Amino acid sequence: MMSESVKQGISFSKLDSFASEAEKAKTAVESMRGKDMLGWMDLPYNQSEIVKNIKNYVKEISFCECFVVLGIGGSALGAVALFNALRHTYHNELPQSKRRHPRFYCIDDADPERLNALFDIINPHKTVFNIITKSGATSETMSQYLIVVEYLEKRLGQKAKGHIVATTSEDSGNLIKIAKEKGYKTFFIPKSVGGRFSVLSPVGLLPAAAVGIDIDALLDGAKKIDEVCRKTDFKNNPALLTATLMYMAYRNGANISVMMPYSFGLRTISDWYCQLWGESLGKAENRLGEKINVGQTPVKALGVTDQHSQVQLYVEGPFDKVVTFIRVENFRSDVVIPNGCETYPDVNFLCGHSLAELTNAEQKSTEYALKKAGKINWTITIDKIDEFNIGGLMYFFQMQTAYMGELLNINAYNQPGVEEGKNAAYAILGRTGYEEKARQMSQDETEKKYIMEI
Amino acid sequence: MMSESVKQGISFSKLDSFASEAEKAKTAVESMRGKDMLGWMDLPYNQSEIVKNIKNYVKEISFCECFVVLGIGGSALGAVALFNALRHTYHNELPQSKRRHPRFYCIDDADPERLNALFDIINPHKTVFNIITKSGATSETMSQYLIVVEYLEKRLGQKAKGHIVATTSEDSGNLIKIAKEKGYKTFFIPKSVGGRFSVLSPVGLLPAAAVGIDIDALLDGAKKIDEVCRKTDFKNNPALLTATLMYMAYRNGANISVMMPYSFGLRTISDWYCQLWGESLGKAENRLGEKINVGQTPVKALGVTDQHSQVQLYVEGPFDKVVTFIRVENFRSDVVIPNGCETYPDVNFLCGHSLAELTNAEQKSTEYALKKAGKINWTITIDKIDEFNIGGLMYFFQMQTAYMGELLNINAYNQPGVEEGKNAAYAILGRTGYEEKARQMSQDETEKKYIMEI
Repeated sequence: MMSESVKQGISFSKLDSFASEAEKAKTAVESMRGKDMLGWMDLPYNQSEIVKNIKNYVKEISFCECFVVLGIGGSALGAVALFNALRHTYHNELPQSKRRHPRFYCIDDADPERLNALFDIINPHKTVFNIITKSGATSETMSQYLIVVEYLEKRLGQKAKGHIVATTSEDSGNLIKIAKEKGYKTFFIPKSVGGRFSVLSPVGLLPAAAVGIDIDALLDGAKKIDEVCRKTDFKNNPALLTATLMYMAYRNGANISVMMPYSFGLRTISDWYCQLWGESLGKAENRLGEKINVGQTPVKALGVTDQHSQVQLYVEGPFDKVVTFIRVENFRSDVVIPNGCETYPDVNFLCGHSLAELTNAEQKSTEYALKKAGKINWTITIDKIDEFNIGGLMYFFQMQTAYMGELLNINAYNQPGVEEGKNAAYAILGRTGYEEKARQMSQDETEKKYIMEI
Repeated sequence: MMSESVKQGISFSKLDSFASEAEKAKTAVESMRGKDMLGWMDLPYNQSEIVKNIKNYVKEISFCECFVVLGIGGSALGAVALFNALRHTYHNELPQSKRRHPRFYCIDDADPERLNALFDIINPHKTVFNIITKSGATSETMSQYLIVVEYLEKRLGQKAKGHIVATTSEDSGNLIKIAKEKGYKTFFIPKSVGGRFSVLSPVGLLPAAAVGIDIDALLDGAKKIDEVCRKTDFKNNPALLTATLMYMAYRNGANISVMMPYSFGLRTISDWYCQLWGESLGKAENRLGEKINVGQTPVKALGVTDQHSQVQLYVEGPFDKVVTFIRVENFRSDVVIPNGCETYPDVNFLCGHSLAELTNAEQKSTEYALKKAGKINWTITIDKIDEFNIGGLMYFFQMQTAYMGELLNINAYNQPGVEEGKNAAYAILGRTGYEEKARQMSQDETEKKYIMEI
């Protein structure tokens, strides 16, 4: 990241000049710990009862062979990231004897083909649906809920309610009311925890526990990172230092943040990161109400895969990115590349190495190629993929995002920009109260001259 | 896309002023049709024999219940995109009676956990491995090949060779030599077709045919778009007009191209597009050898999912993007949202609508919200997802990329930027001839001061 090494880098003296701004960001975050929308900072510490309830519930649903999350955005991405990082690549296709835990699905859109496809492969008698929406008014999730209730009640009658668990706000919104009426099991999303910061609340913990992930260790990992960040100064606080470097790089023209783990299991950690970084930091106004239209666009990449897709652009293209690598030092299993190409020197040199060695050599070499090309990048190395490290990694990104929000002087916890689209969708679907919007939109219809038919 | 509608837009007069440049780009592309690396333009027309061979081979491997592609980049993304777009969402998990065609997997990296996981769920006696590498020297693919050959020979002995099919260059590289020695079935990648333009060659067609996709219709769809582009002038050529608009937007500061289909099935069309656009157009030098470091960074998004993740940033963030929507007019199946929330008006308005209506209302409303925010975007509408339309869509993007390459005056068909990283990986893995590179790299090791341990 530094100008000593790369053309696009930042000088140490420039970095030092940001020390007080960075410390101010940290102080601001600490002063809000647990308050307003910073309840996520308490999650590693205040959930022993909740964890117990989750574990008990998972025991209660021992009939469950298939656990389905119906949620979207922050109600989906965390659970998917945990599942892919911490379960077998083809978990759902393993025989029950090897799998031991339920199959897992998350339907995070309103695509009819996808939901119908799910119904083709599940047995309703052995399936539990986890409906996740804090507001209880998310159109996609509540539509799925209505469809699934009808589906279950037709097949299971009175027993349907035992196949639904709602994760929602404790004291506001529709879903909690519906859950009480219908007698569904419920878990709660604290008021002070927003969707994209909710992975370590029941939003992520319940699905994780349902598929056998050790949720205590997830929280322990988060606690460790929280303590590191809380107790260290600027230069020793990994989330604060890297947030500051990201901020400086953004101000220097790097409007793109590439997240590139070298592990197939971590591919959806990137999706989760993209929401966290994009939705928290992409804002039209700062806290003073000034129009600033800021935000670094997160991009999901995957090593080694994207070396054969995106790295050409990263190496030769514009100086408009920061690349963050995630490197796994020890894979959970490995394979040695056997002999068999003795007469082909451009293949034979691989023999005797393992796939883990190859993957990590490629990570190091891509880092090197970027550096040679003058492009900034940095690497997070984790010893191995396990609950402790993944809990820590996700908490790290949350801290980094919080600090970056302070440096940009924006509210990292709202999403006012999605209202216009929501209202427009209400208008199109004929919701009462949106007639005026519908009228405006019809006047605004795309004119013929903009349409090309082929 | 136009300034009449959006702040970030382009004026009609400005667009008109690019007409001759655009026509020149078209002439340049047409003059290279079928030559150099533009062999992909012939693929819709010159493959009747090849298609016949592919279909015969698929009949020959009727024992196959599991078809595995081992390839990376352009040798993987096209087949995956076709599979996800044109097969059931949970194809691999359907019972054989409903599935009718083999399960499909593509391992496009060197992650040991992923390959070991595959071995956990396949039956070698009923599996065919399609090794795809044009050069026959791709480290990841040749490593996989060696591992898989050992795996098969241990289990099937002499019969192993009937479970391997190689797609490679006809007259150069290792893989064709190995295939001849070992007696593998082979298909060829024409010399003039590069990886990212190869989806309509045997690279994509063989895996597609293996899982029951109608490859004639794919090629027919491509032919249709090719004819439209060939026969029309600037304003009526959809690929040329949109390439020009993308080019102008890029020159105006939109260094990001977001691809956002509103269909879960099309999600990996975006991955394929990201390689095509990123690797073709991200270049350090123009054809005059001048240092230009150009390239628009492609970003994969998915509707409606990313409305709850990225749309906040797209609406409120910087004016640095073009968003391309893909809208599907008719889904292959649908579900009506049933009643059941009469007392909750903010849910009840959804009832009676279908998920397809909801999805398309959200597409339209996101388009509207971006427009209101002054952000450029355009929409490709396809009637339905089928072979004809997907073949056409992919060919369309290839034409658009080719035109964009001309407008940028770059070579869209090479990837010199990946060499440095490849050489560095060879050095790390101890390949003969790379000792000097290894020495350089060891001097260049990351210094302690850049490393923070926690």
